[in-house]
Parts: sequence; C-alpha cells; structure tokens
Amino acid sequence: MKKMRRSARLVDMTQHLLAHPHTLIPLTMFSEQYGAAKSSISEDLSIIKEAFESEGIGALKTVAGAAGGVKYIPQTNDEQAVHFMKGLIEQLENPERLLPGGYLYMSDILGHPATLSKIGKLFATAFADKEVEVVMTVETKGIPLAYATAGYLNVPVVIVRRDNKVTEGSVVSINYVSGSSKRIQTMSLARRALAEESRVLIVDDFMKAGGTIRGMIDLLQEFKATVVGCGVFVETADVAERLVDDYLSLAKLRDVDVKGKQIGIELGSYFHEIRGS
Amino acid sequence: MKKMRRSARLVDMTQHLLAHPHTLIPLTMFSEQYGAAKSSISEDLSIIKEAFESEGIGALKTVAGAAGGVKYIPQTNDEQAVHFMKGLIEQLENPERLLPGGYLYMSDILGHPATLSKIGKLFATAFADKEVEVVMTVETKGIPLAYATAGYLNVPVVIVRRDNKVTEGSVVSINYVSGSSKRIQTMSLARRALAEESRVLIVDDFMKAGGTIRGMIDLLQEFKATVVGCGVFVETADVAERLVDDYLSLAKLRDVDVKGKQIGIELGSYFHEIRGS
Repeated sequence: MKKMRRSARLVDMTQHLLAHPHTLIPLTMFSEQYGAAKSSISEDLSIIKEAFESEGIGALKTVAGAAGGVKYIPQTNDEQAVHFMKGLIEQLENPERLLPGGYLYMSDILGHPATLSKIGKLFATAFADKEVEVVMTVETKGIPLAYATAGYLNVPVVIVRRDNKVTEGSVVSINYVSGSSKRIQTMSLARRALAEESRVLIVDDFMKAGGTIRGMIDLLQEFKATVVGCGVFVETADVAERLVDDYLSLAKLRDVDVKGKQIGIELGSYFHEIRGS
Repeated sequence: MKKMRRSARLVDMTQHLLAHPHTLIPLTMFSEQYGAAKSSISEDLSIIKEAFESEGIGALKTVAGAAGGVKYIPQTNDEQAVHFMKGLIEQLENPERLLPGGYLYMSDILGHPATLSKIGKLFATAFADKEVEVVMTVETKGIPLAYATAGYLNVPVVIVRRDNKVTEGSVVSINYVSGSSKRIQTMSLARRALAEESRVLIVDDFMKAGGTIRGMIDLLQEFKATVVGCGVFVETADVAERLVDDYLSLAKLRDVDVKGKQIGIELGSYFHEIRGS
C-alpha cells in the first residue's frame, strides 16, 4: 500500500475507470490501493464525475451499500454524436467510394482505430441499458466495429464464420438467403463459442435487405439466445422488403446514382429514435 | 473557452492523452481549451507523467520548441508483461483447448476486449520506436489483435482477405503455400487499401511454419512496403523449417501431446529478446 496525493490519484483513477467501463469498482479497492480514506476517494470520484459529464466522456454511477461502488458508463452526448456522424457522412459521400452492387468502400474509415472507437461508443451509448452479455458479428468487415462496441460495454465478442470449415469442435451452421443477391449462403458458429441463453447485441457494418443479420438471429435461436439489439453502421434506404424489423443505424444511404457518380447519405435511425434530433 | 480547476483538468487531460496515443499535442491546445496558462499546463503534465510512469501506464514525452508539445507513449513494463502473459499461459494450457491439426482454441481469450487490449499494448510497447504507419493482418482471427495494437500505436489497420472476391476495385493477389498444410492458398489486398512505401507492422494470432506471414511479406513487396516488424501471439516450437526469420512471439507452444491431453506453453521471444527476462 502506497500513499498517493490527490492529483496522482485523480490521474490513476481516471485511467482505471476508462479501462474498466460497465464494471462495478468497490470504493475499498481504490482506498486500499492508494492508502486513502474512503471519504477522500468519494471526493475524488465526484471531481471525476463532474469532469466526465461536462466533457461528454460518460456517466459515473454510484451504487450504495456493502456491495456498492462506482461504475463508469461510457456515453456520447447528442451534440458530439451528430457532429461526429455528420463529419463521417461527408467523407462517405465521396462518389469514389461507390462499389459494384451498390456497396460503399469504407475499409479506410473502418480501419482507423480512433474513428472506430467513436462508432463503438455510439452503439455502447444506445444499448447501455440492455444488459448486453455478448456482442456478435459475422466476418469480416463487422469485426472491428463489434470489438469497438464490446470494449465500451466490457463484454466479449463472438464472430460468426461464413463457412463451415471451423475447426473448433462441434459447430452449428445455417443456410440463409442473402436478401439482396438472393443467393444461398452458410454461416457457422462453434457450439463452445457462445453460452446458451446469452443476451446478444448484433453489430454489422452494412445492411441492405438484412439477410445476413436475419441469418444471425436465426442462428442465435439454436443457442437459445436473446437478441437485445441490432446496430448497423450504414443501411441502405432503397430496399423493397426488409428482413429485420428492429435495428439501429448510424447512417442511411439514400441516393446512389452510379452513372452520375452521386451518393446521398443522411443520419440513421439512431438519431431519430434515440435522440429525437 | 471555459475555466477549469486543476483537478478537473487532470481528469480531462488524462482521458485525452489516453485516447490519443503517439500523437503530438501542442500545449497551446490544452491551455486554450482550459483557459489556463502554459505554465499551469506544464505542471499538470508533470503530475500526469509521474502517475503514468509509476503506475505502468506509459511514458509522457515532451517535445520542446515552437512545434513542440506532449506525446503519450503506451508502455507495459516488464513486471506487468510477465505477470499478464503467465496468467494467460495458464489459461491456454488447459488441454480442452487442443484442436485438430495442432491448433489451440483461443477464440474465447481473444474475444475479451480487456485481454486483447493488454496484448495490443504489449505489441505497441515492443514496436513503439519502429515508426509504424499501418498494422496489417489476414482475416479472421488476427483482426482483433491488429486493432488492439493499432489503437495503441494510433495507426490504421489493413486486412488482407483470404479470397480474391474482393469488390474494392483493382486487387493484388498472391498464391502462397501454407507451411504446415503444404496447400496452395490465395490472399488479396485491394490496391487502394494501402499507400505505396508504407511502414507496416504485421500482427497475427498463431504461427506454425509461418507460411501465412511469409505470404503477407511477399504481398507487401507489391506495395513497395517496408515490413518493420512481425508480432504473433502464439508460435509453435516444433517446426522443421521456419519461413519467417524476424518476428516476436508472446507465447511458444512447446509440447502438444494430443493423446495424453497435455499442452506445454512458455513465454515467447518478446520476453527473451526485448526484456532479457
């Protein structure tokens, strides 16, 4: 046990809380670690709480009682969210991003850890109260988004494979129809990868008709899981029949004019439903 | 411009530095943001520097002069590194992890954001001075490790695909021979995904003979890239001919007794070469 001054405590507690989101930390842990009275730790925490809230970092929730402590809930406020997504949409609307089949080139944007981290924080903000136990996605492009989200929710990630050549023991596979291409495809998940009756948040980068996400939802039935939410980064507006009803999107691809090289993107349902903006 | 007290500044500066590793932040940015004199900001930074160093968070480097500022370099110290990897090795040595072909089931461990983050910080520590511009991996299981590492280095990730059905414009593909299975396989990378002459750090989860990493190195020649390092989470010891010479491993799978259900794992070359432990 070493004694630490308040200023040093504030720095170390801040980094500890940021590194352990959605985790209940008993005040005794801090007071033992820093050799400080619980009352001093409480004062430290109210300073941190105020700074976290005023700077839009998140909330600090105090749980009273013997099993009590403090919990950091990452939150992006409305202003930050709109500002960030509008900036991203500006980048996405570059017509050079148009790919065959009405897709968008987003690998560069989704390749930047700082950008991903902000997207993950948006999803973590939206689904903070859903008691998510696992974030699930399907390979390949959704994986970084899933990890960014899971990091802020402090839960593990489970990755569904697009083949059934998985060498991880017994595997559950389903065939599904990709809503846009109408082709039959396979996705698989090792039995040991997901505990039964888990509460699962599905995250993916792009949704057209929603066949892939529908496939994940169907696959999850085999694991008796509860789907507590679906978050997609970009959805397309121009879909005849949507295979998934309940989801949150951050951006909506509206007008794609391949010949004229024009893309129109607007804010997704995250901003309508949750934020009312 | 709002005035902030030192305690609130310390909290916000700490989170800002942690969120922007390997990034030069001018002191004027902080002093303008908080309405504080540069001398006060300097004092704040020396408090943060001391706490970061004593708590094993990392280093704070000050760059003097007009274009100067402060830079947070994430670092895991030796003691933390050994403690963390020994704990992980204990989990990995569970014989139920043995998979056909001498592989290990690691998806659960690599599915935990907090664990991944620590692994990423180890790689970022080892390659901090290599002026890494891009972290590269091949789908699927190396992706989370690559992002965790890139997050601490503050550089983008580029993901090589295992097929050539990539719809991202012109693509460079190569065939390579998997060192252990001796089968011919393909990997591809879109031309637009990586700028020519980039300094690339390769990261992967598992290495046997090294055919996959050799393939990435060969692929990178097409992009005139410089490979500044290779980091693998687990390597296998029992390899007749290694196809890659220069790499860092965190753990080494030594004795695999499939019949007797025994696994022996030791600390990897990270701990010999870099740390001298």
